[in-house]
Amino acid sequence: MFDLTLIGIGTGNPDHLTFQGAQAIRSADLILIPRKGENKADLAGLREDIIAQVTDKPARIVYFDVPKRRADDGYLRGVDEWHDAIALRWHEAISAHPDAQKVALLIWGDPSLYDSSLRIAARLDPQPQVQVVPGITALQALTAAHAIPINDLGAPYVVTTGRRIRDEGWPETASKVAVMLDGECSFQSLEMADYDIWWGAYVGMKEEILIKGPLADVAQDILDSRAQARSDHGWIMDIYLLKKRTA
Amino acid sequence: MFDLTLIGIGTGNPDHLTFQGAQAIRSADLILIPRKGENKADLAGLREDIIAQVTDKPARIVYFDVPKRRADDGYLRGVDEWHDAIALRWHEAISAHPDAQKVALLIWGDPSLYDSSLRIAARLDPQPQVQVVPGITALQALTAAHAIPINDLGAPYVVTTGRRIRDEGWPETASKVAVMLDGECSFQSLEMADYDIWWGAYVGMKEEILIKGPLADVAQDILDSRAQARSDHGWIMDIYLLKKRTA
Repeated sequence: MFDLTLIGIGTGNPDHLTFQGAQAIRSADLILIPRKGENKADLAGLREDIIAQVTDKPARIVYFDVPKRRADDGYLRGVDEWHDAIALRWHEAISAHPDAQKVALLIWGDPSLYDSSLRIAARLDPQPQVQVVPGITALQALTAAHAIPINDLGAPYVVTTGRRIRDEGWPETASKVAVMLDGECSFQSLEMADYDIWWGAYVGMKEEILIKGPLADVAQDILDSRAQARSDHGWIMDIYLLKKRTA
Repeated sequence: MFDLTLIGIGTGNPDHLTFQGAQAIRSADLILIPRKGENKADLAGLREDIIAQVTDKPARIVYFDVPKRRADDGYLRGVDEWHDAIALRWHEAISAHPDAQKVALLIWGDPSLYDSSLRIAARLDPQPQVQVVPGITALQALTAAHAIPINDLGAPYVVTTGRRIRDEGWPETASKVAVMLDGECSFQSLEMADYDIWWGAYVGMKEEILIKGPLADVAQDILDSRAQARSDHGWIMDIYLLKKRTA
């Protein structure tokens, strides 16, 4: 039996790490690091840097290859099989070190937010004791960079995905919506004259790009900047907050 | 002219502090700490502990009294006047130290989430350069403690307040809702048989209390535990996530 700690590490700025995260890294005796899969960024390198930053006697590090997701099934079924396949890689990596008591993974952002590690961990057999260390999310890095609150005073907000915006439109009754996991600038499917946007790419990192304003005015700038940055860096992660104007 | 840095410090666990937050504390030359106001917890003491944890040459610390909020006006108007009054206290504390270049405040949770510091800072004249350092929110401490994701796979979620749940009921079309700023266990206004709840008080702190289950089954336990803990500690902060059952 072993403990499995999912450590939120923030969004690419090594200083997003919390003291709790640093302690969890120091007390781990086995750390799993994914190779490839997330995107073309050298995120394995980022994780190594974060580990080196907090300890000069790091745990054993084991790398595992992230399997490719099948694109030919429906979305949910494809994801489900993919999680099964990743759980198998975790199982193989962990079983090769049967003396490891404290296994850790460094999770981009926070394990609670649009991240699959908790669902993958639930597939492990035997089931480890799972601990979560929260980390700074892209949503927080975005609002910090723009120096804005996510909510209006006493008001609710919605967090959703690009897919949902494309398929279902603006969530009924919402005044502010944060959009994640959007590879397609799905804001274009909205009536752009009705919204303001706060957009960011590589939020919290030195490559950070920020654009804000009336959506209809800045949409093209976002599309162009995003395409250029993606071409320059070979990958991109972006996120945005939309606010609906009241008539 | 001065910089004003709003540093998210997490929810009472000093290890929620990020490396970025620690650096911002070390580089400040004036730190404002509120006395009273938030609740009866010794949060001033917590802030002093966090500062002492990261530097043995702390900035000058200036305390300011948090004015009382008038309860006899409407909610929004009362809050608006209250923010004016707090901004005046900040202004007084900062103007007494005209040589301060880097002023900082340590903000419970994250300055972006149901926090008023950004709105208060916007009232300052002259207007400082405002920087935000994100911190771990109660929402993240809650989901970490329960080791659950906040969202269902690829699905949206809503963050709202106890007042909204009481006044407006369950948000249309939402499957998961996180409720903050709820002093009145507003989940009681819902049809409790339809929901599951993940509740927590003092999340992330050593006093943490967690209860989860079908809302109808655990509601009384939450009410009793909350009343007892509030009586024991003299204050309470709690938060919860609700999921609507599909028929």
